[in-house]
Amino acid sequence: MNYRAVTKVTNYVVGLMGLFLLLPAMIGVIYKEYHVALIYLAVAGGCLFVYTLFWHFLRKEPKRSRGFYGKEGFVVTALSWIIMSLIGALPMCIAKDIPHYIDAVFEVASGLSTTGASVIPDLDVVSHATIFFRSFTHWIGGMGVLVFILAILPRVSGSPLSILKAESPGPTVSKLVPKIQTTSLILYGLYIGLTVLEFVLLLFDKDLPLFVNICHTMGTAGTGGFSVTNSGQAGMSQYTQIITTIFMLLFGANFSFYFLLFSGKIKDALKIEELRWYFCIWFIAVSVILANLFFSGYGFKENILGAAFSCASLMTTTGYTIVDFGQWPVFTHVVLMTLMFVGGCAGSTGGGFKVSRIMLMIKQIGREIRQQIHPNQVYTVRVDKKPVSQDVLKSCNTLFIAYVLILIVSCLIVSLDNFDFTTTFAGVMATYNNIGVGFGKVCVGGCFNIFSDSSKIVMIIDMLAGRLEILPMLILFHPNTWKK
Amino acid sequence: MNYRAVTKVTNYVVGLMGLFLLLPAMIGVIYKEYHVALIYLAVAGGCLFVYTLFWHFLRKEPKRSRGFYGKEGFVVTALSWIIMSLIGALPMCIAKDIPHYIDAVFEVASGLSTTGASVIPDLDVVSHATIFFRSFTHWIGGMGVLVFILAILPRVSGSPLSILKAESPGPTVSKLVPKIQTTSLILYGLYIGLTVLEFVLLLFDKDLPLFVNICHTMGTAGTGGFSVTNSGQAGMSQYTQIITTIFMLLFGANFSFYFLLFSGKIKDALKIEELRWYFCIWFIAVSVILANLFFSGYGFKENILGAAFSCASLMTTTGYTIVDFGQWPVFTHVVLMTLMFVGGCAGSTGGGFKVSRIMLMIKQIGREIRQQIHPNQVYTVRVDKKPVSQDVLKSCNTLFIAYVLILIVSCLIVSLDNFDFTTTFAGVMATYNNIGVGFGKVCVGGCFNIFSDSSKIVMIIDMLAGRLEILPMLILFHPNTWKK
Repeated sequence: MNYRAVTKVTNYVVGLMGLFLLLPAMIGVIYKEYHVALIYLAVAGGCLFVYTLFWHFLRKEPKRSRGFYGKEGFVVTALSWIIMSLIGALPMCIAKDIPHYIDAVFEVASGLSTTGASVIPDLDVVSHATIFFRSFTHWIGGMGVLVFILAILPRVSGSPLSILKAESPGPTVSKLVPKIQTTSLILYGLYIGLTVLEFVLLLFDKDLPLFVNICHTMGTAGTGGFSVTNSGQAGMSQYTQIITTIFMLLFGANFSFYFLLFSGKIKDALKIEELRWYFCIWFIAVSVILANLFFSGYGFKENILGAAFSCASLMTTTGYTIVDFGQWPVFTHVVLMTLMFVGGCAGSTGGGFKVSRIMLMIKQIGREIRQQIHPNQVYTVRVDKKPVSQDVLKSCNTLFIAYVLILIVSCLIVSLDNFDFTTTFAGVMATYNNIGVGFGKVCVGGCFNIFSDSSKIVMIIDMLAGRLEILPMLILFHPNTWKK
Repeated sequence: MNYRAVTKVTNYVVGLMGLFLLLPAMIGVIYKEYHVALIYLAVAGGCLFVYTLFWHFLRKEPKRSRGFYGKEGFVVTALSWIIMSLIGALPMCIAKDIPHYIDAVFEVASGLSTTGASVIPDLDVVSHATIFFRSFTHWIGGMGVLVFILAILPRVSGSPLSILKAESPGPTVSKLVPKIQTTSLILYGLYIGLTVLEFVLLLFDKDLPLFVNICHTMGTAGTGGFSVTNSGQAGMSQYTQIITTIFMLLFGANFSFYFLLFSGKIKDALKIEELRWYFCIWFIAVSVILANLFFSGYGFKENILGAAFSCASLMTTTGYTIVDFGQWPVFTHVVLMTLMFVGGCAGSTGGGFKVSRIMLMIKQIGREIRQQIHPNQVYTVRVDKKPVSQDVLKSCNTLFIAYVLILIVSCLIVSLDNFDFTTTFAGVMATYNNIGVGFGKVCVGGCFNIFSDSSKIVMIIDMLAGRLEILPMLILFHPNTWKK
């Protein structure tokens, strides 16, 4: 283990967190919440102090540096996200916006992992600084903090691809351009561009206060889902709801699509197989839900926006809600839960298992059947007409197995709270897949403060493991990682 | 596709079914249910007539016979089980024991697949012949009908291993001895031996009527779970309940264990890794359930047998119940559902995903982590100290993916009945994993007649797919199988 490099990169993250915390401090000043602003400022100062201290010690590169490989990439990623959650929780807790520290960690981990599950029962009593900071964590969590560091820092010693691999969602990480740094820059450029576009479009809604617009847009961009007011998205205008639906879908799509689009390769962009599956799955889900609602006597026309919004929200793992789908028939719940599991595209800000992996898995079943029928022929799984390597398939399958096993273990621990099975299962699904809204007691309007501390800790781990796609967390806690 | 060979083997199954149906006819005569006996006799006659007819046409082997390979093995297995379910349902339906044909097919498929989910709300009004036949289907379904044919018939043309592979549960099929026929004979020998042993031990319970003993024993042996009386296993003596617990566990264990045991290789037998995992999982489950019951104020001592019995019953996918675990805390439900999914050992009569596959999956995660930590080393998954081939792992993973996807699709269709999520999910789990008892409305004392016909058809397919481990069903319905 290259401790030096790991410490160095983690230290960048602490420093960055210090800078990030200056923003809510500013918001606090604007809204005259001086007490809260001071707390954010103090924690920011602490972060920057620690950063400078370590920077001083680690300034000189040793003559013989050990490599920075896959293992280090995973460890640094997992560590960074945990440390960010622990730091971000401090001002919330000290400012008494969320008095209980574990609750505050839950809230920040939920923000960073773009989950959007909240333990705050009443948003009206929370300071603007904290409301802003919650939503801001969505935005930085969406694209990844280390990708950001890769983009802005001149050089991280060793192989930066391992970091990109560990933090970016999806079965394979494709560099858009040969240089990692440029790839990161392009990704963040697209991300900022799309965010600004949504913000501008929402400015046309005169009823939407600027503060709500900014926070809501950051929540959409990161596919997060924290609400800004108690009335949430249901209280917003239809215009805003439609724009939000579109942008949730856009942020859940593979970002290489936009890259191809802006590079003028429109034909290539439209040919991305994952993207077609993504929109197909969404469209089918909306259709069957509408059909089910219609035949169950819930009406059709009045539910079109509700179904489209809910499907987009749960599939991209955003978690915004404009209707109480808890009141819909059970069939729609199973459809929505399936969407929760599927998630967004690889290389997007969405969580879940990712459309591309579902695609790989279904194609593998097809291959297995064909192989059994014609044992002497050789079949390969192809995506975008290119064969997928056996290693990628193996990783995808192992991840799926790990995913289900962790899901079961999490359900076991959370079930000790003795809520009904639906609440237990949906609560774990909602956090693990980074959605933030479930069924049962954590359905629309529900609050995660009902769970015990032990359940919350499990959910914190699940949220981070879900966002980082499990492996970094498993590697961080595996004894072999720390053996000489 | 070698249509001739497929027809021939399927025809054996029809003939055998004719013979099997003579048994309930006899029971009918004994209990003076002459009307019912006549119906069973008539259907048996029909089967034997069809058999003779086809036998006559297929008697002469053609000079150039096409091979009998994997594909044919899968198709013949899937077809046989479907045909048996359709035939077995006839007498039950005609005798008006189960007036609705789809219900009757459900009951027989449930019997053959050793599920034990019943659509009969009141067993008191059902004829003894039908009660017996239900339990008898458990017994023949447990070890497999085609394995039986392999054992008693002198020679099935082509490669009989493909049949054994398609019908026997588990990731790999090991021939106990070089000859397939001898392997089948040994398996059935052990099966009959263990069944007789349980029957004899239950004779000591003076309160247990002979008829109940026979049916109950066949249900245990096949890890089926149909009750014989309305009071079920809860009404039986503690002695019988203890014996049943032990035999459920014995029938859920890998049969190669008994083979090694009786071959004098006791050390080898005790070293089987799957068996150790199997008993460990059961023991841990019982312990945590007891701990949870104790800390939830349900008492400890009075629940020991209940917990041991329930865990054995659900893990071996038998489905017998002596306590209403629906009243226990939700944690125990999640533990039991996990056991339902894990299932028995490979090469046993139990259903579920099989302990050996869980073992392979967990070991694969360990390998993946180690591989990521040390990318240049080569790690292999080992079971019983022997490396497991990549093909076996690939099949195991594909099966798991197919398993989960089918589970989701089944839940989607069954949820159209609009029962609560727990009932929907547990109903599918209970049939798909061949258990027969779930949670919610299909918990202890529940009846599967609450579901609609479409749900029942899905469950019939699930039960057979679960028993045959999915692949035969998928291959049967895949268009490529039937292409020239």
